[in-house]
Amino acid sequence: MTTNGDGDADPTRHPATGPPAGRRRRDPEASRGAILDAARAELNAHGYSRMTIRRVAARAGVTHGLVMRHFGTKERLFLAAIPGPQRLGAALAGDPATLPERIARAYVDRMETADADDPFVALIRSAAANDPTATRLYSAMQEHSRAAYRDVLDGPDVDARVDLIAAVLLGVTFSRYVIREGAVAAMAPATLAEHLTALLRPVVLPASGTAPGD
Amino acid sequence: MTTNGDGDADPTRHPATGPPAGRRRRDPEASRGAILDAARAELNAHGYSRMTIRRVAARAGVTHGLVMRHFGTKERLFLAAIPGPQRLGAALAGDPATLPERIARAYVDRMETADADDPFVALIRSAAANDPTATRLYSAMQEHSRAAYRDVLDGPDVDARVDLIAAVLLGVTFSRYVIREGAVAAMAPATLAEHLTALLRPVVLPASGTAPGD
Repeated sequence: MTTNGDGDADPTRHPATGPPAGRRRRDPEASRGAILDAARAELNAHGYSRMTIRRVAARAGVTHGLVMRHFGTKERLFLAAIPGPQRLGAALAGDPATLPERIARAYVDRMETADADDPFVALIRSAAANDPTATRLYSAMQEHSRAAYRDVLDGPDVDARVDLIAAVLLGVTFSRYVIREGAVAAMAPATLAEHLTALLRPVVLPASGTAPGD
Repeated sequence: MTTNGDGDADPTRHPATGPPAGRRRRDPEASRGAILDAARAELNAHGYSRMTIRRVAARAGVTHGLVMRHFGTKERLFLAAIPGPQRLGAALAGDPATLPERIARAYVDRMETADADDPFVALIRSAAANDPTATRLYSAMQEHSRAAYRDVLDGPDVDARVDLIAAVLLGVTFSRYVIREGAVAAMAPATLAEHLTALLRPVVLPASGTAPGD
């Protein structure tokens, strides 16, 4: 639920120039939070493709223009509204020796709230089906996650290792939350976190295992 | 291209009872091979959903009935035609100590021939989009692969480890052959095989790394 800005938090239009009346127009941070809450509710209710700026604005009790000034596009609103990327950096901070556990736990904690309507799961489905917007959004989300992993990984081949972590987590997501069959889908969350920790350790901390050099 | 049977290789109808004339009707193995070649060509040209038994039969120069006697259903024909499952068992046989390399190489060798029309990639796309037939076929293919891994894995938690291997390879498939962006998509096949070997080693050979006990 953190809503720390990424540069597009401040509406450029000055309140005194007379925007249409809106309940929250006098407090940009409150408007932003209400818009993000509304976007998450719309995503859960209708999925990305049927989410509209107008519906989000109506649900948040603000104008269409105010949503546009805060977020610019539906894609940017989506990226700000989904819970993953904003939280990941905070979850990864800490002792490098226990980073594999933290990556595994952050992933499991995030995904265990996922269902078929989860925006990330919906996005994977749509990207797999070749929807170009979904593919672009999916890539943008992956890039957020990769940036967070890149910040905390040391050693050789960081780009390759970051993307391997992403690929492993994507494969687990696909098995457990999209296809939902097999042992990975059936295991308890704590067991999944343990297996993921073991699986990710040589990629996260290559000194502790055997890593290919190239 | 091996076409070793899995129990449904022999047509039940005796040649002397008078099937419609067909170029290959006197040699069940040749018919079977021709049907499988035709099925692969149809899959590459049209994908699974538009592949029909009738078109496969026409391309193979045999009757619809002969295809049905060999394979029974379109799904079984598909599973026999795709190259993965039949080859995997042979590729995995050998020294347990080098099994991670062999799993990685078998996967890379199989997938490096994949493109957007590859039947496995097409199936992942369709399963992701919630197509029930594709999901069933995808599960059947995964079960073939899991059975091959199960045969060669020792130690605790075999079902969980087999499914984790499948999840890792699925994630790489999704990144590299479906979404096709990022470092995993860009790396040379030999580099991918090296990274996969390192990634899979603790799952394939848990004694050589840290495995969760549960």
